[in-house]
Amino acid sequence: MIFLIGDFTGMIGDPTGKNITRKPLTREDVLANAQTYAEQVFKVLDRERTEVRFNSEWFGQMTASDMIRLAAQHTVARMLERDDFAKRYAAQQSIAIHEFLYPLVQGYDSVALEADVELGGTDQKFNLLMGRGLQEHHGQPPQVVLTMPLLEGLDGVQKMSKSLGNYIGINEPAIDIVTKTMKIDDALMWRWIELLSFEISIADVARLRKDIEAGQLNPRDLKLRLARELTTRFHGNAEAERAVEGWNAAVRGQGDTNALPLTRLVVPTEGLRIAALLTQAGLTPSNSEGNRKLKEGAVRIDGEVLEDAQRIFMPGFEGVLAVGKRSFARVRLQEA
Amino acid sequence: MIFLIGDFTGMIGDPTGKNITRKPLTREDVLANAQTYAEQVFKVLDRERTEVRFNSEWFGQMTASDMIRLAAQHTVARMLERDDFAKRYAAQQSIAIHEFLYPLVQGYDSVALEADVELGGTDQKFNLLMGRGLQEHHGQPPQVVLTMPLLEGLDGVQKMSKSLGNYIGINEPAIDIVTKTMKIDDALMWRWIELLSFEISIADVARLRKDIEAGQLNPRDLKLRLARELTTRFHGNAEAERAVEGWNAAVRGQGDTNALPLTRLVVPTEGLRIAALLTQAGLTPSNSEGNRKLKEGAVRIDGEVLEDAQRIFMPGFEGVLAVGKRSFARVRLQEA
Repeated sequence: MIFLIGDFTGMIGDPTGKNITRKPLTREDVLANAQTYAEQVFKVLDRERTEVRFNSEWFGQMTASDMIRLAAQHTVARMLERDDFAKRYAAQQSIAIHEFLYPLVQGYDSVALEADVELGGTDQKFNLLMGRGLQEHHGQPPQVVLTMPLLEGLDGVQKMSKSLGNYIGINEPAIDIVTKTMKIDDALMWRWIELLSFEISIADVARLRKDIEAGQLNPRDLKLRLARELTTRFHGNAEAERAVEGWNAAVRGQGDTNALPLTRLVVPTEGLRIAALLTQAGLTPSNSEGNRKLKEGAVRIDGEVLEDAQRIFMPGFEGVLAVGKRSFARVRLQEA
Repeated sequence: MIFLIGDFTGMIGDPTGKNITRKPLTREDVLANAQTYAEQVFKVLDRERTEVRFNSEWFGQMTASDMIRLAAQHTVARMLERDDFAKRYAAQQSIAIHEFLYPLVQGYDSVALEADVELGGTDQKFNLLMGRGLQEHHGQPPQVVLTMPLLEGLDGVQKMSKSLGNYIGINEPAIDIVTKTMKIDDALMWRWIELLSFEISIADVARLRKDIEAGQLNPRDLKLRLARELTTRFHGNAEAERAVEGWNAAVRGQGDTNALPLTRLVVPTEGLRIAALLTQAGLTPSNSEGNRKLKEGAVRIDGEVLEDAQRIFMPGFEGVLAVGKRSFARVRLQEA
């Protein structure tokens, strides 16, 4: 098994300079990134049976003339058939010409590796098939292409992606995996069970849906089971249990809140009212929203509903703030 | 003044392999071609004030990654605005992706040379403007672009081009320049006078047209004046005069036919009838066409109209065959 790092295009970055998130990386940046990729991927792949390769190995030696020959192996019309190019072209959004080269670059990786099978998300189908075409052109048997459905992120709509911020990182702390998973809505829970759970089979799903409809199963308990499974996968059983306990302590007032990560907040010497504190902790978007939640009785301090909007929280305070069932934070206040 | 030879793309050839006339050239091929370009171009440009450059000088060192960066400097939509790409795309004719790179390659030549002015035919306007854009992108003042109308070839329709075979070569023999020029029609003659003649000014043209309309000037005489001027330009006065004399001898029966180039034709021992001979000499497309011309009295041997369709031309015959006023050949027949 080969885990391929596309460092060649990473070192080019976004040559139009329009996408500031795609600055060119140096060789050192790339190697540092590669290290973090390896740390993460070996939580999933078997280290002993995985070879890590970098595509700068072949593209670093490629000349401009080789690139022109590679570009000759595909037509503009077929490239414009790719779904995202077709949409952007129809919408008169700019497509820079080098973007037509990247699918060829990605496809050529399969030639360089003489790949038998290549895995990717369904959104990579065009590029994966490009690999097949280029392999045939180079006299190789074309690879098998295996695509996976895209995992929707925390928003339940867009694919889980680091740049969209709607993700759970493989190497995030256990409590964050639990907390983030517990925030997803029920529709997304079913989707995640389908794509991510090994414990809950597709066959179980119909029965579980019926139990929930019949009021025999609380969806929160099923979600907690999923959260525990995912956390165990990346942190082991003990850490997962502790994180679940922390979540229960914060949200349900059961168990040890020390399992929750601590956020330090800098506050004025004279302290803060609750609405300002909730906003600073990122639990409400504004003070007025905080006051509304307070009136609804949705704000809890260490599991107890808070009703006094005038209460001042001074430096030195430590506790778990919660808004509704999903948003909470264990905080310690300190002076500037 | 720089005379730039685009050897970089020449050495790539047509990477799709579809265009067999664009086989990749070796470095040796390119240098041999360059020699012939230089021979021709220095009949027009001043050798002392001209520098010959090859664009492999900069593109030979360019990496795949540089080419991707260059490709990022233009969009697919703007490239598809180029007239020939727009037409081919609309007609669903295939455009290979590397064809989008060639205008960038050509444009980048201006960057590498820090060109002040670039000359080209009107069909090169897009590519010349591409040079301006890339120069600005590289912080250079953009070049002045000077386009010339395209010279129509012998057919009077398509641009004069080696691959279309409708051309007069700068280094063709004097008699061929005269003969080919004398074959063009009157409309094309006016066009060539406009684009090619230094002796006949644009101001003269109106007067000459009137003279011809009034029957005071035979268009053939004006065409001969143009033919003489063009031949003198590339072969000098003496050779031009001799070629014009040869043409007069062949077509008008005046002067020395030895000035005409000799074509050797291999014929059967028992000889050939005139119709077959005209076809073999390339003066008529078929024997039946030859017989028709014979009946029209349009076939001449050494200036004398031939009427006897049965006359046999034996090996050893030498003379000037002519069909009408424009097609003729000085031939010598020999046995296989």
